[in-house]
Amino acid sequence: MEKVNIAQKLSLFSEFWSPKIVGELNGQLVKLAKFKGEFVWHKHEGEDEMFYVLSGVLNIEFRDRVETLRENEFIIVPRGVEHKPVATEEVSVMLFEPNTTLNTGDQVNEKTRSSLDKI
Amino acid sequence: MEKVNIAQKLSLFSEFWSPKIVGELNGQLVKLAKFKGEFVWHKHEGEDEMFYVLSGVLNIEFRDRVETLRENEFIIVPRGVEHKPVATEEVSVMLFEPNTTLNTGDQVNEKTRSSLDKI
Repeated sequence: MEKVNIAQKLSLFSEFWSPKIVGELNGQLVKLAKFKGEFVWHKHEGEDEMFYVLSGVLNIEFRDRVETLRENEFIIVPRGVEHKPVATEEVSVMLFEPNTTLNTGDQVNEKTRSSLDKI
Repeated sequence: MEKVNIAQKLSLFSEFWSPKIVGELNGQLVKLAKFKGEFVWHKHEGEDEMFYVLSGVLNIEFRDRVETLRENEFIIVPRGVEHKPVATEEVSVMLFEPNTTLNTGDQVNEKTRSSLDKI
């Protein structure tokens, strides 16, 4: 059991759209990620997903609207809901989701990361 | 589905040691709490518990040491591990734990909150 310093962990990687595992509890993972640009439309059939913005601005597009998240704002995307994260500038995000969650959900493409590093 | 602004939610309450529910996903709750003073020694037999410090300094005493958490640091206390949160000055914390978790774990006393408000 060790404490985790978010800034220190964020300094360890620079790759976009490649979540890193920084904690696990009750079958859920805590991940850090950096986003820039547009992700892909996807959904997670069996998993709710939480996006917590640590720095920057994250737009999450839904089929009927866009939610804009700033520092220290979060949203929980319920299972089954299509979404597409978009970041005009670099954004750092903390994710909470089950350890079964694939980053691209029901889509498999060049952004899919099936094995995540623990940092 | 609505985004949550942490500062706005923290402005809605001032009571110490009384976690408020601000989100739920995958059977887990996201809670906000303000701590000041000493809590009680306790453990959660079946639940891991995450403490994420939003502002202030939180000491978590364990039987063999103390961990000091500052802003944007977190720790995951594994199930079964006795701990006692202590905050010399006011601290704001985000908690992440199963929806079955009782704040005082295996102890029931004046600090026990068996029904939490959702804000």
